[in-house]
Amino acid sequence: MGTRSWWGWGDLESAVAGAERAALVGRVAALLPGAGLVDHEPPPVDELGVRAPRIAAPPSLAVLCSGDVADRLGHARGKAFRDVVRNLLGDVGDVPDLVVRPRDERDVVDVLDWCTGAGIAVVPYGGGSSVVGGVEPRGLGPAISLDLAGLADVVEIDAAARAARIQAGVYGPALEDRLRPHGLTLRHFPQSFEFSTLGGWLATRSGGHYATVLTHIDELVESLRVVTPAGVSESLRLPGSGAGPSPDRLFLGSEGALGIITEAWMRLQERPEWRAGASVLFARYDDAVAATRALAQSGLNPANCRLLDPMEALLNAGTDSPGGVLVLGFESADHPVEAALERALELCRDHGGRPQPRSGARDASDTWRSAFLRMPYQRDALAAHGMIVETFETACTWGGFPALREAVVSAAQDAMRAVGAEGVVTCRFTHVYPDGPAPYFGVYASGRWGSTVTQWDEIKTAVSDVLSAHGATITHHHAVGRDHRPWYDRQRPAPFAAALQAVKSVLDPAAILNPGVLVDVPDRRT
Amino acid sequence: MGTRSWWGWGDLESAVAGAERAALVGRVAALLPGAGLVDHEPPPVDELGVRAPRIAAPPSLAVLCSGDVADRLGHARGKAFRDVVRNLLGDVGDVPDLVVRPRDERDVVDVLDWCTGAGIAVVPYGGGSSVVGGVEPRGLGPAISLDLAGLADVVEIDAAARAARIQAGVYGPALEDRLRPHGLTLRHFPQSFEFSTLGGWLATRSGGHYATVLTHIDELVESLRVVTPAGVSESLRLPGSGAGPSPDRLFLGSEGALGIITEAWMRLQERPEWRAGASVLFARYDDAVAATRALAQSGLNPANCRLLDPMEALLNAGTDSPGGVLVLGFESADHPVEAALERALELCRDHGGRPQPRSGARDASDTWRSAFLRMPYQRDALAAHGMIVETFETACTWGGFPALREAVVSAAQDAMRAVGAEGVVTCRFTHVYPDGPAPYFGVYASGRWGSTVTQWDEIKTAVSDVLSAHGATITHHHAVGRDHRPWYDRQRPAPFAAALQAVKSVLDPAAILNPGVLVDVPDRRT
Repeated sequence: MGTRSWWGWGDLESAVAGAERAALVGRVAALLPGAGLVDHEPPPVDELGVRAPRIAAPPSLAVLCSGDVADRLGHARGKAFRDVVRNLLGDVGDVPDLVVRPRDERDVVDVLDWCTGAGIAVVPYGGGSSVVGGVEPRGLGPAISLDLAGLADVVEIDAAARAARIQAGVYGPALEDRLRPHGLTLRHFPQSFEFSTLGGWLATRSGGHYATVLTHIDELVESLRVVTPAGVSESLRLPGSGAGPSPDRLFLGSEGALGIITEAWMRLQERPEWRAGASVLFARYDDAVAATRALAQSGLNPANCRLLDPMEALLNAGTDSPGGVLVLGFESADHPVEAALERALELCRDHGGRPQPRSGARDASDTWRSAFLRMPYQRDALAAHGMIVETFETACTWGGFPALREAVVSAAQDAMRAVGAEGVVTCRFTHVYPDGPAPYFGVYASGRWGSTVTQWDEIKTAVSDVLSAHGATITHHHAVGRDHRPWYDRQRPAPFAAALQAVKSVLDPAAILNPGVLVDVPDRRT
Repeated sequence: MGTRSWWGWGDLESAVAGAERAALVGRVAALLPGAGLVDHEPPPVDELGVRAPRIAAPPSLAVLCSGDVADRLGHARGKAFRDVVRNLLGDVGDVPDLVVRPRDERDVVDVLDWCTGAGIAVVPYGGGSSVVGGVEPRGLGPAISLDLAGLADVVEIDAAARAARIQAGVYGPALEDRLRPHGLTLRHFPQSFEFSTLGGWLATRSGGHYATVLTHIDELVESLRVVTPAGVSESLRLPGSGAGPSPDRLFLGSEGALGIITEAWMRLQERPEWRAGASVLFARYDDAVAATRALAQSGLNPANCRLLDPMEALLNAGTDSPGGVLVLGFESADHPVEAALERALELCRDHGGRPQPRSGARDASDTWRSAFLRMPYQRDALAAHGMIVETFETACTWGGFPALREAVVSAAQDAMRAVGAEGVVTCRFTHVYPDGPAPYFGVYASGRWGSTVTQWDEIKTAVSDVLSAHGATITHHHAVGRDHRPWYDRQRPAPFAAALQAVKSVLDPAAILNPGVLVDVPDRRT
């Protein structure tokens, strides 16, 4: 890895710069002629007025702690558009008092003991890629960022079960490097892959590579080990069980508010040997959606089933198609998948789709992946140019989707007009289910430098209200964090909220774990 | 439906009788020449000394209540071997004071209000097919059996999403009858199918038709509606979500201890158009297991993948094969499945399997299903003849399976010897996962009439201890109930037990809901 950016995505060395930066900005200028597009530099770290740590660790734990300003700034928030722009503006908000790096689970236990006793908030930190305020010690009073990167080992591989015991702090690429010599792969590739960790994926119910069936990390979990202030929870390694409510499902999505996931037995895949992919153009978007639904209900289970609407196709795939483009991919480690692709294309043709001449599926998939992983860096470059560039995502039923998309796009455009921003809204499906799609929306708009965060917040509120009104989820795979709480609180059943509150009170009686995430806790400032 | 048996499985009219009964007993006599095999009749209901109800409903709810002795006896316990034999012996134990039949959700709310106020235990009852003491008011003091069969409507069908809103009290056959005209099916066929309900399947995480992927009812759930004493919980209809821990997963497997499931949006399937199936014989059981593992990891996802060990093949499929027989089935509503079967057979041949000449797959599958649904009736006939006939099931990793099976069979045989029973132990896989199988064991032994329950209990304790020692689950799809509690308590992580306890305390503060299931509650007799 290179030098991590404290203010934006990834490594400084990988930032969009020079000719790439000029070309990117040029493309935006062509799309939005009214945009100002003045470039802005991040402020110097030593001019941000970050206050000195208010707490000190006991001597036995001091070795784990860093009070370094740049280190603390790098752990102060996630990597949403609003995080990056606030950093660029020098508005760094609440910064953790210390970054604490446990070396092993014993250290995690000791740190929780210390913080429980001292009433210090503990914000678990994996790769810090949250886009929902999940790692931000917002209004928490004395707080530490618990960086789990030191727990990064693949402890054990069970080849017969195709499973591995993996520590939670391992980053995506390091994990795959460790599995590759065994011919195995987790095949969980969220967009944050390079800068996020297994523990982060588990705590946030991350969505990954597979467009169908194994859509969330949840499905790849065999067992979890979680440190809570009330003790360590470890579930049995079981391929399946019906013994009471699933313990793992309580911790999956708990976002650090119920415990610190320290390791997991994960289900792995063999590396694919057979692949087949194609793109299908449609004249009408409704037909494209119908074709995608037929595919999602066919049992063919494509690994990739990404329907780009016309604007998304134009902006992110360079394809001008009035009904959008469906990108399909099948893969298997066991058997050829050409027949599955052929049947999928037949379904598409039944709905008016026109399959495009096939390029090598591996190339197309690799090209997409590189571009996909590059997007956050591009987002940073555009954000620094005063653009509003952000995404949000949801899931809904097939029947509900057309009205939802129309309402979302219309609300986003109205909100953009209201805040004086000019821009476009795109939509793609990241995952599809027999009963509905997971639509992922992008907003690209010209903003007013200095106001783009408040402009975005208004757009985000408008579209979140639409999701809520349509019974769609506030998040399919970006988690709740602090930013989604108002809509999450409306979405979840009240008795379940009470249940979570009760669980929190027994597992984390001092309410030190990521306070404000999932459930309300007593005000920590008083 | 016919006349439900109060003491045994299903309808009186369908009992194994006459020539079928003689032939069944004859086959057992050939297998176990030492067995006594004297037939016993159930005792007359009016000679059982069932005490009068200790409670009376408020006038507004009296219309829902039955104090009839036969009715109450029919709701006093489930249909495990130990339940049936105790009934045959006239040892009826604790009987609910009233059977209460709500007509709608409003009635459920009112009944819970009454029972919360009056401190009356509420034991939810679907079809009463529990084999783990789940519907038994064992030691509860005043108790009602809440029979949900009145909530049996398919309220709404969403054809686009292939989903339906279904009331929890509907029995399997009635549900399928309602879906058939729409070309849809839930395709959830547990052995209890004819005498169990959607709500029961959901509350117990029932295992069904699909050997792979959609193994438990959990995977077919879009949303749940649950009445708790603290209010009604209704989750959004979502094909997928990452917004916090799943609310549905908390209620799935809660066995009536956290709330009463009144309805659910369920994911449906189209009726299969293409099917292909085959049986494969093996010379060595280890090879058969290896072939099954390869299949489970192939991504071919057979609907049926039932490996019978040699004894199971002999007893229940009439097949003499030293390495057992693997029964495979593929099905699809969208595309032919011959290629998938061919690849599966190739995998089997790679492991020494010998595919048998193919009969019509539909016939074979129908034959199995008829025999499968008949088994509980046969069990009753054998139980009445003093036989010990019972099953237990689990799940484990592939690497752990050989030692587990050996230990289970050996413990069962030792325990049979210790209690003076002579018999056999069989094993089949009901479901398989990439990381391990769900083995299902059968015990068929000659017992001493009057002692077969205590004999079985000793065998069951021995094998449950083995499951526990091997890190296998105490149940893959039979639930915990009251009978599995000691092993469940060892299996689940302690912090999760505390979490469940806390949830129970807020959702059911008077601890009226199925007390003793999942978590301990204060002694209700004091």
